Amino acid sequence: MRDVSIIGIGQTPVGEHWEKPLRILGAEAVLAALEDAQLERPEILYVGNMLSGQLLRQENIGPLIADHAGLRGLEATKIEAACASGAAALRAAYLAVAGGMVDVAVACGAEKMTDAPSDETTKALVSAADSIYEAQHGLSFVAINALLMRRYMHTYGYAHADFAGFAVNAHRNAAHNPNAMFPRAITAEDFGQAKMIADPICLLDSSGIADGAAAVVLAPTAFARAQGLKAVRILGSAVATDAVALHDRDDPLFLSAVHVSTQRACAQARVGLGDIDFVELHDAFTIMAALSLEAAGFCPRGGGARLAMADEISLQGRIPICTMGGLKARGHPVGATGIYQVVEAVQQLRGEAGANQLHGCRIGMCQNIGGSGAIAVTHILERSD
Amino acid sequence: MRDVSIIGIGQTPVGEHWEKPLRILGAEAVLAALEDAQLERPEILYVGNMLSGQLLRQENIGPLIADHAGLRGLEATKIEAACASGAAALRAAYLAVAGGMVDVAVACGAEKMTDAPSDETTKALVSAADSIYEAQHGLSFVAINALLMRRYMHTYGYAHADFAGFAVNAHRNAAHNPNAMFPRAITAEDFGQAKMIADPICLLDSSGIADGAAAVVLAPTAFARAQGLKAVRILGSAVATDAVALHDRDDPLFLSAVHVSTQRACAQARVGLGDIDFVELHDAFTIMAALSLEAAGFCPRGGGARLAMADEISLQGRIPICTMGGLKARGHPVGATGIYQVVEAVQQLRGEAGANQLHGCRIGMCQNIGGSGAIAVTHILERSD
Repeated sequence: MRDVSIIGIGQTPVGEHWEKPLRILGAEAVLAALEDAQLERPEILYVGNMLSGQLLRQENIGPLIADHAGLRGLEATKIEAACASGAAALRAAYLAVAGGMVDVAVACGAEKMTDAPSDETTKALVSAADSIYEAQHGLSFVAINALLMRRYMHTYGYAHADFAGFAVNAHRNAAHNPNAMFPRAITAEDFGQAKMIADPICLLDSSGIADGAAAVVLAPTAFARAQGLKAVRILGSAVATDAVALHDRDDPLFLSAVHVSTQRACAQARVGLGDIDFVELHDAFTIMAALSLEAAGFCPRGGGARLAMADEISLQGRIPICTMGGLKARGHPVGATGIYQVVEAVQQLRGEAGANQLHGCRIGMCQNIGGSGAIAVTHILERSD
Repeated sequence: MRDVSIIGIGQTPVGEHWEKPLRILGAEAVLAALEDAQLERPEILYVGNMLSGQLLRQENIGPLIADHAGLRGLEATKIEAACASGAAALRAAYLAVAGGMVDVAVACGAEKMTDAPSDETTKALVSAADSIYEAQHGLSFVAINALLMRRYMHTYGYAHADFAGFAVNAHRNAAHNPNAMFPRAITAEDFGQAKMIADPICLLDSSGIADGAAAVVLAPTAFARAQGLKAVRILGSAVATDAVALHDRDDPLFLSAVHVSTQRACAQARVGLGDIDFVELHDAFTIMAALSLEAAGFCPRGGGARLAMADEISLQGRIPICTMGGLKARGHPVGATGIYQVVEAVQQLRGEAGANQLHGCRIGMCQNIGGSGAIAVTHILERSD
């Protein structure tokens, strides 16, 4: 296996792009990433996307985005793993380059959610859950996370207000991200007063439905160095899965897929959790942020919410998370999110994160989760010196 | 890159499986393929599927099928490339094994189409086309192929009856395939009397909407030989794409993606078309069979239909196609089809094709097309001696 680096990044702003179809959003991100890499044509494109079929009646978006980016003929397919589709596309691109089949690959995440009526979006999002044993009984995807959050609060004795730190941190960081959907700070009071969505989840526990696309260009590290390109190495790449339905899991409060994929990615990267300077984690809901910090091993079980209460997750904290706003405040165009996370991590590792720059950071972790923990994709990136 | 072989195959019958959800169909195929390979657990699973989101409101089927096959935790994602999703999943599995990341991979194709009302299925299938420039103007996917067929008949002077040979050959071969949806012979008269679907396409020009799942197990050829397993080598694997909308192509009657992917697969395999003993091709409609034979280079442009008229495509012909019934008569569970093609080619190359056995065949080609030619995935397989 060859050592692989990210040599180009691109993103559109996250938001409501009523004026642009999915293919154009995707093409813009791909072209921006290629321009950043100073390359004209990759050999392969993987597009991470979850909902184009359900919300836009458009499948086959691999060839479609390739063509609209001026790359007609390119090998291009779609990868789907619910909200982890973006990182799963990166994983596929990583395998293609690491294995030696191609020298230049692009992984793009693209999603367009705001054209559809919101009840359609709700119906489509719950397809990340078990259609027979969860969705068919009336659970929405928010409701599934609400069950998890209620159970967590009961088991560990937390109140809803104890989760405020996750949303406050995300919005504080998004305020300096020009591509964020909600670039404004909020207070713990705002969090407490937000309207209820599915008890105990309120509006400010939840990431925003959004449109957006992001892309990264991958190449062998040796190629990047020979060309004098800015390179961020992919030290580890791992995927693990779990039962899709909550009730099928041994312990719903332990995200086993997160645990296993973190372990595998760290083992491949030969780093421990203590070496990781920041984490772009999957804060689709505040409960997911807490559970994934625990399952990854950054704190003991039941201690995830406490990290937020102590503000250890801020840019100055012990383990900064969601440094550019996370899913919560950058926005969560579901199949694109995994690539936004990686683009933001590359910005940090290149020293291009502006007001949110973490000084001296060397290693970042990106973790993208699909369903309520059914799949977790973890990548560990390292600054090139 | 390592030499890769197929060491196990599995399939469910193609048909209407109202009693089994998609996850069970997929799991059955995966388990059958693993049993055939005498292995218990692969390291990775790719599931080719096009319509689970639209028709079943179920995404994230990688983890779901893995779990229902007793493989909880396995790395598992879905690959989508419209009707070429199955072969695109094989391509991903091939890259993972050839590149050295894993030793044992499973590619599964799974689709369940018959639970939905047929107008829903029609709406979902046209998502393989361009949603903005084709589907939104009222074209169904059959209608798009009808435009192609009408243009072809006009350009080359064929009558509808001239295409009968494709359907007659497919049904003749399906009669001996216990997994085929329509295992019965038809005559040219039946073909001529079939009811109109979208002028000039009639019922017997069209492959059947179906449920089904098939799977193959991949491993390095060296591993297969060391274990004494029946192995069929993957000599070539290639993907090419084209514009999604017909009107965007330089020449709608030339399937450029088929041409390029065939050339690439042959170059990798170091074989010429004359070395290929049979082709499992994408006869979703008779016009697709004709156009893909031409674009691949098995006959001059405009000569595809003539191959069928001369019966050169039969088991005894110059270039046998669809040896177990093809999409037409085995049935076309869209995202599963590409894997069914490969399973059937392996049956031929192992000498397990029963009454349809091609004697002395050594090299087979499988070609899976998504959309009206927007993507083509070609694999070349060789008998192990």
